[in-house]
Amino acid sequence: MTNPIIRELRKEDLYNGFLKSLDSLAQASSMDSSKAQTVFEKINSNPDYIILVAKVGERIVGSATLFIEQKFIHDGGLTGHIEDVVVDLDFQGQQIGKKIVSRLVEISKSRGCYKTILDCTDDVMPFYQRLGFKKVANEMRLDNV
Amino acid sequence: MTNPIIRELRKEDLYNGFLKSLDSLAQASSMDSSKAQTVFEKINSNPDYIILVAKVGERIVGSATLFIEQKFIHDGGLTGHIEDVVVDLDFQGQQIGKKIVSRLVEISKSRGCYKTILDCTDDVMPFYQRLGFKKVANEMRLDNV
Repeated sequence: MTNPIIRELRKEDLYNGFLKSLDSLAQASSMDSSKAQTVFEKINSNPDYIILVAKVGERIVGSATLFIEQKFIHDGGLTGHIEDVVVDLDFQGQQIGKKIVSRLVEISKSRGCYKTILDCTDDVMPFYQRLGFKKVANEMRLDNV
Repeated sequence: MTNPIIRELRKEDLYNGFLKSLDSLAQASSMDSSKAQTVFEKINSNPDYIILVAKVGERIVGSATLFIEQKFIHDGGLTGHIEDVVVDLDFQGQQIGKKIVSRLVEISKSRGCYKTILDCTDDVMPFYQRLGFKKVANEMRLDNV
């Protein structure tokens, strides 16, 4: 069982496997280098975005994002949204996704979010159910382009 | 058919029906006044949060939030999230929700988001389907408290 280091994304990770591993969700690694750095700076300067990566050796093999939404409901409460959970194919089955998501849930709790939510397809529902998530609703999507 | 004004939330709306109408989702109007203003300032100063309200006469009778998430995937793309859609019970059936959500979708498009997403329960799926949304996944939730 590989024991990855789980830590926040750093700029040097962009070309160390991070963008490449996101490609399995949607194209990321072909992004222009200056744009990737601009996105990094925007996200990194916002304390309400937390991206965790899993590092094995010198390579990023998985990641996920938490962003914290300020609401008026729940007496001005906060909601933690988990997005873009990914683990490289050749590192799956080693609980790396579980470690990243669990850590994000801890951060969501420590930041005072009253709930943590995410959207997932049917095939990965059991994975999130094992982590304590329950299905409560449907994700609806409208493509803008 | 009532013809509401749809516009961005202003501070004076907080006690003009806005917080009260949110109560049907989860408690909001009992929030301490200074906290409500702090939440307003935080949201209002962030260009990636847009709250639209529907005003009929002097009263806010509905609202919804769009927040814009910066991603690395889709070549550093943006996603529009619609949250907390609400219309007062005595103003339902007058297409007010449709007007607010449609306007938020326009804003999501004009801001360059490649998709607009939201979570909803089964009972309101037809409402969003009529606006062009399609079910793509499941919303999973973990209560943090």
